[in-house]
Amino acid sequence: DIFAYVEQYFHHKVADQVNGTKDLTGQDWVITAGPTMEAIDPVRYISNHSSGKMGFALAQAAQLRGANVTLISGPVNLPAPNGVNLITIKSADDMLAACQQAMTNQADVFIGAAAVADFKMKAINHQKMKKQSNADEMQLTLVKNPDIIATLASQKGAKYIVGFAAETQDVIHYAKDKLARKGLDMIIANDVSRTDIGFNQDQNQVTVLTKEQTWSSELATKNQLAIQLVEHIHTHFKSTLSK
Amino acid sequence: DIFAYVEQYFHHKVADQVNGTKDLTGQDWVITAGPTMEAIDPVRYISNHSSGKMGFALAQAAQLRGANVTLISGPVNLPAPNGVNLITIKSADDMLAACQQAMTNQADVFIGAAAVADFKMKAINHQKMKKQSNADEMQLTLVKNPDIIATLASQKGAKYIVGFAAETQDVIHYAKDKLARKGLDMIIANDVSRTDIGFNQDQNQVTVLTKEQTWSSELATKNQLAIQLVEHIHTHFKSTLSK
Repeated sequence: DIFAYVEQYFHHKVADQVNGTKDLTGQDWVITAGPTMEAIDPVRYISNHSSGKMGFALAQAAQLRGANVTLISGPVNLPAPNGVNLITIKSADDMLAACQQAMTNQADVFIGAAAVADFKMKAINHQKMKKQSNADEMQLTLVKNPDIIATLASQKGAKYIVGFAAETQDVIHYAKDKLARKGLDMIIANDVSRTDIGFNQDQNQVTVLTKEQTWSSELATKNQLAIQLVEHIHTHFKSTLSK
Repeated sequence: DIFAYVEQYFHHKVADQVNGTKDLTGQDWVITAGPTMEAIDPVRYISNHSSGKMGFALAQAAQLRGANVTLISGPVNLPAPNGVNLITIKSADDMLAACQQAMTNQADVFIGAAAVADFKMKAINHQKMKKQSNADEMQLTLVKNPDIIATLASQKGAKYIVGFAAETQDVIHYAKDKLARKGLDMIIANDVSRTDIGFNQDQNQVTVLTKEQTWSSELATKNQLAIQLVEHIHTHFKSTLSK
């Protein structure tokens, strides 16, 4: 079984680095990953670039420290991390519903690592749309998707809420704005205009922002970075609890 | 090497069934596969459901009968078939250019198995589009993509041109219309409203139409079906040459 082998390999690689610390035991972590897929009609859709690797690596890193992890993912080509409750969905509406279900009892930590489509079709066509030979242009009318992380933050779905900001310009500016505007506890920013990191790459380099602090990571594999990020999240989460 | 193993397994499975006949030796076959990906901005795109399995299986089946096969594919998660010249592209414009390049000298057979996006953005945004808080709707203006198979048919890029028709209703009606309108020699129709076959499934059931004949396949794996389709294409292509 090839998938079991890959999964075991990944598990051991991360496990080695976490060194058996189980200090997240008893905590519920909910993590989103991957893109969402918004149907245009039965054969066409709008989506975002996202391999799901960062969210899957975060889920594995948190699980190996003992957390009870629910991973809610759009369509990706990754094996389910060991010991994680994986829920697969397609659209942003489905992702929000799955998050709310997973957080019926308030979770400890929520990490929104999914690349959620900001827009969906105003009306999905139930039959394949045909090209009209007399029309050279076609208008798609899109409406906003629910803002999953802002919704969960306002509903206090988790005690500590972490977002991602994937931007192509003014990365830190947009990330700071998003942190404040959506009521997040932490935001992890990366510059997706760089081709060596981020989307579909195994490596990433991020800047972590809280209200008080800024930390820039080294360039690292997503697995290594996930371990560092789980450590950052856990440390800052603990410090907010003790205030 | 997992991929080499999977590739070998697939290769042998098809090879067993082709039984070593090399009667396509000396023929150039060009086959398209997978979806195309039309950028909206650096993070968003429009695409079509397509695993690429049917086109990859056709490429392997033709190669095993001795054909010199160029496979031009959109983004898929499949290993390259053994002995096939694989060219990967993203957009429909890129796919057309790659086909024309591969058919600089007229090919013998062209099979358009890709699920090409009919529309692309009128203008691609080079920075990530931001949600405007005061606008609940967004209009995307799309323009027609080039009709790859009709273009290649009119340019006589190959001596024998085979299309696919993936439809959700009136399947045979649309397929017959497409055969005539685009100047194809054969069209392979399937009903993608059925969830047991087609997109992302390992099995398929198709109806093959030429001007003179109609043939409906049994439900079969895409690998088995590819062998039958290559046989049909080769037989009908030979009969047109002898006219």
